Amino acid sequence: MAKATLVSLAESLGVSRQTISNVINAPHRVKPETRLRVEHAIAESGYRPSAAARQLRTRRSMNLGIRMMPVVDGINGSILDRFLHALTEAAQDEGYRLTLFSAATDDDEVRQYEDLLNVADLDGFVLTGTHHGDQRTAWLLDHEIPFASFGRPWSDTEDPFSSRHPWVDVDGGAGTEQATRLLLDQGHTAIGFIGWPAGSGAGDDRRSGWLRALRDGGVLADQLDVEVHDGVPAGARAAEQLIAAGATAVVCASDSLALGALSTFRSRYPAPTTPDVIGFDDTPVAAAVGLSSVAQPIEDAARHIIRVLAHTLSGDAASGRPDKHLLLTPTLAQRFPHPLAGDGWLA
Amino acid sequence: MAKATLVSLAESLGVSRQTISNVINAPHRVKPETRLRVEHAIAESGYRPSAAARQLRTRRSMNLGIRMMPVVDGINGSILDRFLHALTEAAQDEGYRLTLFSAATDDDEVRQYEDLLNVADLDGFVLTGTHHGDQRTAWLLDHEIPFASFGRPWSDTEDPFSSRHPWVDVDGGAGTEQATRLLLDQGHTAIGFIGWPAGSGAGDDRRSGWLRALRDGGVLADQLDVEVHDGVPAGARAAEQLIAAGATAVVCASDSLALGALSTFRSRYPAPTTPDVIGFDDTPVAAAVGLSSVAQPIEDAARHIIRVLAHTLSGDAASGRPDKHLLLTPTLAQRFPHPLAGDGWLA
Repeated sequence: MAKATLVSLAESLGVSRQTISNVINAPHRVKPETRLRVEHAIAESGYRPSAAARQLRTRRSMNLGIRMMPVVDGINGSILDRFLHALTEAAQDEGYRLTLFSAATDDDEVRQYEDLLNVADLDGFVLTGTHHGDQRTAWLLDHEIPFASFGRPWSDTEDPFSSRHPWVDVDGGAGTEQATRLLLDQGHTAIGFIGWPAGSGAGDDRRSGWLRALRDGGVLADQLDVEVHDGVPAGARAAEQLIAAGATAVVCASDSLALGALSTFRSRYPAPTTPDVIGFDDTPVAAAVGLSSVAQPIEDAARHIIRVLAHTLSGDAASGRPDKHLLLTPTLAQRFPHPLAGDGWLA
Repeated sequence: MAKATLVSLAESLGVSRQTISNVINAPHRVKPETRLRVEHAIAESGYRPSAAARQLRTRRSMNLGIRMMPVVDGINGSILDRFLHALTEAAQDEGYRLTLFSAATDDDEVRQYEDLLNVADLDGFVLTGTHHGDQRTAWLLDHEIPFASFGRPWSDTEDPFSSRHPWVDVDGGAGTEQATRLLLDQGHTAIGFIGWPAGSGAGDDRRSGWLRALRDGGVLADQLDVEVHDGVPAGARAAEQLIAAGATAVVCASDSLALGALSTFRSRYPAPTTPDVIGFDDTPVAAAVGLSSVAQPIEDAARHIIRVLAHTLSGDAASGRPDKHLLLTPTLAQRFPHPLAGDGWLA
């Protein structure tokens, strides 16, 4: 006999799914004779309303909200898509689902929180793209809504490790430092950086790793620092500027910038045998063109966010408290810079 | 005075958000004196529980379920990520939100439908990746659950335009036909096709467009048809086979296959001045390496799916009935095949 399900049970009893759900979750709303008949059938059939039962037991919706960030150029955004994939899987493993919404601005995102808390009965939220003066985290903390962020709280005065809310982040500075050291080890001394305008937490962090490696290596190259808004053409132009200033290699805050820089470098310098342009996020585009890139352990980040949020929501002290604040270290995906010139980039 | 919100109202009254929500949605569950106090405050404050009010009026959750498809190689999958972005925005515009879940198999997806209908009170589903003998559409139809699919129903016997459920799809065959005609126009006569093993609806459709163009052009090239499972290395090997058989150009069922084929073509033939390898899906990787590719109007598809599903759910005859079955025509993103050799691919 096939396993009884909500649907098969409803069909065999000639009642609606909602009635069965009510018998389980809100028995007072069902007429006594119907309730007895459904309860009897449930017992007979072996039907196990696992998710419904859990929801009843915990009085939680097992549903987490997350804003879908807008598409930018399809290169950098892919890291957030990978995050969303991993988050969906990790959530499912812990019995949670995700409610996806879009918002044009942070203001709008906060309005959506309210609306969702009102109509969708969410247990909490996952935030991405934290930044200086983030009103979203402030609002959620003020209203005591459970949440965790992918991205540390950025502040000039407060230690992120004493933050009141859980977060997971990747140590971007450690990634660009590692990238810069690789270039130093290969004999480069004029190593530029192409990053975003000062003031973005993640961008400043990535710049700081490059500077740290240069200083540790006894090289001073402050003048090889270009600030631009993200994008492939901007990366190409910034690289021209850096080459004119004497740079022989460059570390970039994103793969979009690095892809632009790579085209400029290849048109000025012959393809070297070791990387001279290094990107950030190890996107499919980087893999396709043979671009070395800093790789975020994004699946680990997603799993930990769900773990820490599930722990907060369940209040389960027995299961071991996951780190409330976790900074993960990225790795460097090193590739030979010979795009479309052999099998190297097929790996 | 700031606009009253659910949260500000709950705070000023000293009651929970749930109590206010109950006053609006289930007043019988609230003690009369509390109910009067809250109703008075709502009237005074000008608070407009728009989404909650709509939900009450329509008795719908305004929530649609969609399965998050697993990541494959980050190249082909990007089209479904773009679809999800567009779907989230289109849904929001119509007042809907998405519930995201993961499933390992179609069987598992059907189990998730049941679970979601049980605990999450969804209004309907959006399906992707329809195929021959799709048990998911059969199950949803049997149980009279509203849904629409991105992808037509694939069947050897039934006309998709007489399908019982709404769908939107892109005419893949028209895309590969267009791509093949371009290659014919440039003087190629030995044009190969790298596609998936026969039996997949979308794959067979793409193959059929290539064949149609060859026959219309008076060229017979059945032997230049290679069937492989998707992936960059498979595309590279298939291209070797085709070049050995005399092919001078190739149309591919995906950008992953085309990226592999492109590397083989560039190592055997010098870069031509017109495309000789054409992919499918116009992914960021195609743009980055200067690969021509068939481009799906994925945002149009997402918008129409939401429109037709919203129409089904609201039963609103006045707003004009959107096409229940819609086949969109793709375009061809034509690029010069000079990866990383100038500014052409920065556009």
